[in-house]
Amino acid sequence: MSISLSPSQQEISRLKREVSTLQQEAHGRDFGEPIYVGNYLLARLEQLGVTHMFGVPGDFNLGFLDLVEDDPKMEWVGNCNELNASYAADGYARVKWRSIGVLLTTFGVGELSAINGLAGAFSEHVPVLHIVGVPSTTQMKTKPMLHHTLGDGRFDAYEKAAAQFTIAQAHPMTKETIAAEIDRVLTTCITTARPVYLTLPTDLVYAKIPSGRLLTPLQAIPPQNNPDEEAFILDEIVKLIREAKGEVVILVDACAVRHHVIEETRELVKRTGFPVYSAPMGKGAMIERDERFGGIYVGSLTREDIKEKVENAKLILSIGSLKSDFNTGNFTYSIPTARTVELHSDHTKVRYAYYPNIVMKHLLPKLTARLEPMAPKASQLPVASFDPITPPDEPSPVITHDWLWPRIGKFLRSKDVVVAETGTSSFGILEVPLPEDAVCVSQILWGSIGYTVGSTLGAALAARETKMNRTILFVGDGSLQLTVQEISVMIKTGVTPILFVLNNSGYTIERHLHGWERKYNDITNWKWTELFSLFQGSTSKPKGKSYTVYTKTDLDELLSNEEFASAKEIQLVEVIMDKFDAPRALRRQAELSGKMNRYVPLSPTQ
Amino acid sequence: MSISLSPSQQEISRLKREVSTLQQEAHGRDFGEPIYVGNYLLARLEQLGVTHMFGVPGDFNLGFLDLVEDDPKMEWVGNCNELNASYAADGYARVKWRSIGVLLTTFGVGELSAINGLAGAFSEHVPVLHIVGVPSTTQMKTKPMLHHTLGDGRFDAYEKAAAQFTIAQAHPMTKETIAAEIDRVLTTCITTARPVYLTLPTDLVYAKIPSGRLLTPLQAIPPQNNPDEEAFILDEIVKLIREAKGEVVILVDACAVRHHVIEETRELVKRTGFPVYSAPMGKGAMIERDERFGGIYVGSLTREDIKEKVENAKLILSIGSLKSDFNTGNFTYSIPTARTVELHSDHTKVRYAYYPNIVMKHLLPKLTARLEPMAPKASQLPVASFDPITPPDEPSPVITHDWLWPRIGKFLRSKDVVVAETGTSSFGILEVPLPEDAVCVSQILWGSIGYTVGSTLGAALAARETKMNRTILFVGDGSLQLTVQEISVMIKTGVTPILFVLNNSGYTIERHLHGWERKYNDITNWKWTELFSLFQGSTSKPKGKSYTVYTKTDLDELLSNEEFASAKEIQLVEVIMDKFDAPRALRRQAELSGKMNRYVPLSPTQ
Repeated sequence: MSISLSPSQQEISRLKREVSTLQQEAHGRDFGEPIYVGNYLLARLEQLGVTHMFGVPGDFNLGFLDLVEDDPKMEWVGNCNELNASYAADGYARVKWRSIGVLLTTFGVGELSAINGLAGAFSEHVPVLHIVGVPSTTQMKTKPMLHHTLGDGRFDAYEKAAAQFTIAQAHPMTKETIAAEIDRVLTTCITTARPVYLTLPTDLVYAKIPSGRLLTPLQAIPPQNNPDEEAFILDEIVKLIREAKGEVVILVDACAVRHHVIEETRELVKRTGFPVYSAPMGKGAMIERDERFGGIYVGSLTREDIKEKVENAKLILSIGSLKSDFNTGNFTYSIPTARTVELHSDHTKVRYAYYPNIVMKHLLPKLTARLEPMAPKASQLPVASFDPITPPDEPSPVITHDWLWPRIGKFLRSKDVVVAETGTSSFGILEVPLPEDAVCVSQILWGSIGYTVGSTLGAALAARETKMNRTILFVGDGSLQLTVQEISVMIKTGVTPILFVLNNSGYTIERHLHGWERKYNDITNWKWTELFSLFQGSTSKPKGKSYTVYTKTDLDELLSNEEFASAKEIQLVEVIMDKFDAPRALRRQAELSGKMNRYVPLSPTQ
Repeated sequence: MSISLSPSQQEISRLKREVSTLQQEAHGRDFGEPIYVGNYLLARLEQLGVTHMFGVPGDFNLGFLDLVEDDPKMEWVGNCNELNASYAADGYARVKWRSIGVLLTTFGVGELSAINGLAGAFSEHVPVLHIVGVPSTTQMKTKPMLHHTLGDGRFDAYEKAAAQFTIAQAHPMTKETIAAEIDRVLTTCITTARPVYLTLPTDLVYAKIPSGRLLTPLQAIPPQNNPDEEAFILDEIVKLIREAKGEVVILVDACAVRHHVIEETRELVKRTGFPVYSAPMGKGAMIERDERFGGIYVGSLTREDIKEKVENAKLILSIGSLKSDFNTGNFTYSIPTARTVELHSDHTKVRYAYYPNIVMKHLLPKLTARLEPMAPKASQLPVASFDPITPPDEPSPVITHDWLWPRIGKFLRSKDVVVAETGTSSFGILEVPLPEDAVCVSQILWGSIGYTVGSTLGAALAARETKMNRTILFVGDGSLQLTVQEISVMIKTGVTPILFVLNNSGYTIERHLHGWERKYNDITNWKWTELFSLFQGSTSKPKGKSYTVYTKTDLDELLSNEEFASAKEIQLVEVIMDKFDAPRALRRQAELSGKMNRYVPLSPTQ
């Protein structure tokens, strides 16, 4: 049945509809189909490309978990413990560029178990959202002596601890503010590449709120630089580069990776022809087998031919530097400030002059355009070769670090994800040139042993989704013992990493720092090749293959086997090594650290 | 050769010696053979009866570890990870009464991994010292970007987090103050039964300080109560008890155990004949198979015959209560304040009147003396029987909780240490009467799953040393996955606990709270009986035996086997149970929790 309206009535109706549409567009956030708060959060995460959520169930997050489990676009991973879950979220974020890692835990017990993982993400600039299921808003106000509390009514103690290790926190207590709070912490997370913390009271998960805000995606790109100031700085930099007569090198570091200027930096290198080097934490950002890539610069730990080329340059263009001890060869850069230009995610530094809020994301493309004409001259600057080398021909069959890492260099393939544990592995991988678009995951600054096991799980899930190649872990036996159970979650989720377990009978990195023959650096030996069997219930079809290799020949053959190298199922390779052997860079680092940390008195009479 | 002195010279010499002796006695702390700070700390720990130190080496604690390893009276345990180590220190402290647990970790990464364990010790009143090896005092002041830092110079971030979960903290920066700082936090630790935090800069470990303070042992006993106030309160209590005409029951709770008034409370029961009941967290404090012990009181979760007897008493003498949700049947005590006297470690409450600083340690013996004459009347008050019961005769062979716990009741022996994980085990053990001098370890308030695995290690080491009997763990498969690796440290240290793994395919306690059939409450099944094999290197002589039991008959036979029951080697018993089965008390608790935490909306239109 239709009702006939007069033309003026029709016009009024049309105008009313138009007003309504315009109002909705203008104030989108106040409109939209009402949805549960839990689903609002999930929708935001999906907009950010998050497909996996890590964590452990606990009674204050079960209601939200119903929504997660029912969401066809979100996979709940279900880790063995919260620390491992936080490492997994970190690994996921590192491989799934421009997305974030998400961790869900429960009030007190769960969140505190994960806090080291969050601190690591803070330290290393990794965007992770930590969602904590907390008691209802009423309980948060009345503070009864619930389980998982300290028994003294301090319901805010966990938030206070979390605030030390996250860049933003939200503790929404009403449905009117919660969407804005969620958006605020997520925006901070993606713009700063740091972890953020969000409490989710049990009763708010199912509160209904307008969904209109979801029409406006969250923005990760920082605001434009002040144009006048930016132009001034560009002039300054170009002038310095002219004065250097093209003798400029680019040094790429952690924040180039974490703050997403890899493409811009590669473009700068390509168009200018300046030689480019990486700090350890920038490893993998550049195309390492490119002819203009000159290797890894780590201050006095650097290979001599590389060191000379970097330090003799007339100007260093440093991109995203993070000058920690292990990233700089214990603060031994021989590069004067007067010869350095530093681009950062939130400021720029030209020699001694500091320019806040001038961000590299916008500065870099303009700099590239200005410098492109210098290309012919810059390209003449020689770089040291950083191609994979042939493993040395040593008489002993024992697998040494000096032999291992060059051999691994030949094993790696384009788009591999390489995860290197703090210890012999993180130092060993430094001198291995990565193939194109390979990713390197390591904690050079935070250095929490055991990190890579959880991280490998998250990295492998992200790699599978983003069509990367294999995920390959290098971990020592000491580190693996901290977080070993997460291998069972790898099996459960069906990812197929290759796990190289360097079995060197304990904490070898520590032996090099102190306590060479001390018992506290020993660990009990495990039967590593039994792990896959243990972690699978007797009813499931067994997954995975395990190997123990004692000699170079054994390992060489295994690495050359295409079936093995194709990584179609999860594999573990126990590599038997001498307990005192270490890569060159670690040996040297240990000497430098020992000088800084006096572990024993200088004289018996002190 | 002797030199002849005149009488006056002799007198002068004698007087000089006397002056010197008196000075040393008066100012003992300023004298004494100089020793390393590290050894001073170790000497203090030895005075407190500490024989085992838990933790993980890290480069900022290695110098101190040299001293630990060289100390013949201190054993370095060397855990698989820091969280497990913190749980072990907690378990050690709970079994080794009047001593403390000690945990050693490294700056940032190590200490943060342990923070949940420390928070648990805080919540549950367990004295633990957390020693953190930190950079040198110079580095702590100049704040270079060291590994294990947040990269932003906030060297105090970890201390700030720790301060939320410890009762006292010390950050000594000079050798002049460090002994006093150590003594301060240790004294607070033993007097409050709470965890404390001590940073140990690398350079201070080997600074030399006077050892004279060590002549004065640290004092755990609180100062005497104000005599007038105490006498007044005693009169008040005695008057109330007279008015109750002997119809008084004693209710013993957590702090009677943690603040060491078990002996005083047992004496009160013995001399007065008042019936005595325990709250869940007071379990094991009383002689549970004594005729005056009436069972466990948990508010509305209590067995009906017990509940009635407690709640009908005219006066409740409550000792060391801690009224958390799981300890009180979700706050369902039916005992009016007007009928309650509460004795605490730091205050007393008579009906509504609060008396700060009147402590039970000194009040209890005086109260016992005053009440002893009432014994004949009090002894007539009936108590419900709390003797071990015969397992019910169920038709199905499947092992049920209703059958399991009575059967375990018959298996337990005097001086056993029983560790019950949060979940079906902590609820199941409640109704099992403990044999004389058995100890029960459980986290009723904190409830961090996985806790018991580390805790069992510490408990077993303490039990071995203090000539307790067997250490027996009850843990679910879900909880064990969090912290499983610590079983390898049990094997390494040679302790021989019996580990009952209740394999019920996931987080059963959670199913009862929410998500009955949800996938997030499932876990992958492991081959539990392969654990011992994995955790022993191929060269060692295999230790331990593992069993899987599917039926009541199987388990009954195993428990009746004297070889098994003697626990001469480490043993693991996988008990296959239905994934939805739970003890009665948990089923009831879940109903009550569900009412408090709404996990799903009341109606679809909310």
